[in-house]
Amino acid sequence: MTLHFAADAPSFPVVRPSRLDGFVADRSFDKPTLVMDLDLVEAQYRALRAGLGRADIHYAVKANPARQVIARLVDLGSHFDAASKAEIALCLEEGADPSEVSFGNTIKRASDIAWAWDQGITLFAADAEEELEKIADNAPGASVYIRLIVEVSPGDWPLTRKFGCDRDTALRLLDYAKALGLNPVGFSFHVGSQTRQAAMWAPTLDEMAAIWAAAIDAGHALSLLNIGGGFPAFYGEEIDAPTAYAAQVIAMVEARFPNVATIMAEPGRGMVAEAGVIVAEVMLVSRKSDRDMHRWVYLDIGRFSGLAETEGEAIRYQFQTARDGDPMGPCILAGPSCDSVDVLYEKRPVLLPVSLKSGDRVLIRNTGAYTSTYSTVCFNGFPPLDVVVI
Amino acid sequence: MTLHFAADAPSFPVVRPSRLDGFVADRSFDKPTLVMDLDLVEAQYRALRAGLGRADIHYAVKANPARQVIARLVDLGSHFDAASKAEIALCLEEGADPSEVSFGNTIKRASDIAWAWDQGITLFAADAEEELEKIADNAPGASVYIRLIVEVSPGDWPLTRKFGCDRDTALRLLDYAKALGLNPVGFSFHVGSQTRQAAMWAPTLDEMAAIWAAAIDAGHALSLLNIGGGFPAFYGEEIDAPTAYAAQVIAMVEARFPNVATIMAEPGRGMVAEAGVIVAEVMLVSRKSDRDMHRWVYLDIGRFSGLAETEGEAIRYQFQTARDGDPMGPCILAGPSCDSVDVLYEKRPVLLPVSLKSGDRVLIRNTGAYTSTYSTVCFNGFPPLDVVVI
Repeated sequence: MTLHFAADAPSFPVVRPSRLDGFVADRSFDKPTLVMDLDLVEAQYRALRAGLGRADIHYAVKANPARQVIARLVDLGSHFDAASKAEIALCLEEGADPSEVSFGNTIKRASDIAWAWDQGITLFAADAEEELEKIADNAPGASVYIRLIVEVSPGDWPLTRKFGCDRDTALRLLDYAKALGLNPVGFSFHVGSQTRQAAMWAPTLDEMAAIWAAAIDAGHALSLLNIGGGFPAFYGEEIDAPTAYAAQVIAMVEARFPNVATIMAEPGRGMVAEAGVIVAEVMLVSRKSDRDMHRWVYLDIGRFSGLAETEGEAIRYQFQTARDGDPMGPCILAGPSCDSVDVLYEKRPVLLPVSLKSGDRVLIRNTGAYTSTYSTVCFNGFPPLDVVVI
Repeated sequence: MTLHFAADAPSFPVVRPSRLDGFVADRSFDKPTLVMDLDLVEAQYRALRAGLGRADIHYAVKANPARQVIARLVDLGSHFDAASKAEIALCLEEGADPSEVSFGNTIKRASDIAWAWDQGITLFAADAEEELEKIADNAPGASVYIRLIVEVSPGDWPLTRKFGCDRDTALRLLDYAKALGLNPVGFSFHVGSQTRQAAMWAPTLDEMAAIWAAAIDAGHALSLLNIGGGFPAFYGEEIDAPTAYAAQVIAMVEARFPNVATIMAEPGRGMVAEAGVIVAEVMLVSRKSDRDMHRWVYLDIGRFSGLAETEGEAIRYQFQTARDGDPMGPCILAGPSCDSVDVLYEKRPVLLPVSLKSGDRVLIRNTGAYTSTYSTVCFNGFPPLDVVVI
């Protein structure tokens, strides 16, 4: 199998191929399988760590909660951002200290807050009065940070208005938290997923710094800034290398938030995406009509079995086959299910070898984030994406 | 709990409430749960059976593969349309005869075709040369029907061009199947999911009948017409009652396809959707800003834990709470995950009681189809949708 793809891509991490590719090449898989290389996770952690300076890394567990990934990151000294009770339990089981795990979902079940508090979790996110009330009732005296909404996101997959509140609401929530007996320590925000260049953070950081200053002026002794995620992975468009990216972001943060005691960063995709490859198979190549411009290529994996992030064709994965030396042609790529929306790329067709046929292996690169857990339990009777960690 | 919703909806099946509602009202659930009532499945089967005349009902297993649902339908004499090896295995385990199970996915793994043939499955779908070759290699002499593309779909969720081929390709495939030693018996098509009125089938049936006639003219002795699914469920907009709907569709088929030996129909949604209700809970009610027009209401279930069909706000579920007697107001409805696309209804907000708050129970009506299997394995650490069958 020719690994020309990695060689062609200038921003590809230097550590990549060898062990992961060797493992995959030597084995056959009877269903779609994500293979994760822990050494690549570690290399990326170290690269981000080197750039992030004094900031605490809270790995966003939701990106890939494979037990061995969490265990390796615990060993490396990572902290964790958990979205749910199950994610907190996982981190604690793998040896994380409760003081290093934040409950970062702004939407929490009251009983889960109580359970987390009981486990020793002391830091919670909120963006609404009712959430603060739930935290005050179930984790009295806990530290909370208020999530701010980012009005204009530079990310490839900008966030909706689902999370966060605006400036006036945030200032009011700081007061309300205090009134409820909580400890309001600061703010969080999310610049948007897959923000490819560090320089793209500047407008968001300016916006956030103005609110931070307003809170200080209003008499709040803020000590924590959570800059969230947004750290990118390579999906075909150039990205900054991780250490330089992280260092530039932190330099911009330090310049705008002087003397902030604690900085948190929550890489998820940027930590694990490039450590994984999915081994898939071509199920069918067809043409609907003699008039159609493009072939249809159907894989044994689709939007409902691990590739949910192709929705709207937002994330463009890189494909690799043993026939990549043959002439290439555009095709529409789809999943194997009977669901008509299970189409991966149609608006912008994908280049694949014209000789591709049923039974051929397809590697889907940099799929270590937001794949395994997005897989459905058994849609159309297909099994969930299998995960192998090496 | 006031059940005014059913009373307000004229096209609601008469058999509905009582047993299912009683079961749900008497119990508490600690996570989102789909409750399915087998008696409602049976009533709907009988209603469709009464209208479908001599057509064979092949229940589309993918709509809800709960083992007890399959078992009840086997008892009632239903046949089955399976999308995968696992779905075929399920039907056979529950007592279906292999001659009554079709392998209707046009995208099949070669080894699964061989396995199915070995189990006694003799009827396969195809829409491409390569698929016919796989069938000929692995199920020599099998019967195949060619899936046609529907150029203009009247359904609420029209299908993409993912499935089916056009007229010229179809005629060529009939010849090719014969040349490969297969038995090409007819055509299938899909009018589009959730086609609310029977009259909406007419243009599609006209289109298909012209291709059928061309195949007969070309010397093919066709014996089977598979009219697929499209049978609707009640999601707030009026639909025809099941028996009348089915009877009208079959009358239109008989008028356009004279003397066809076998008619197959594949209701999925139309068989099971109204037999299920999801019990969910409000996690948070919030406002992002004083300037925002609408509240945000977050449930403990979202697009990645069972409500995938809210994508693009295509399917509009009906919600019911104990506060429905209070003043109602519009809100944006979202799921509990940290994923920003996990928003159910935003473009067309949902009316819910203004008094609604965290901890309140929410019933989501007519959710028996395409919910449980669309649920992810553990996205954000949330468990898959639980299913209870009564």
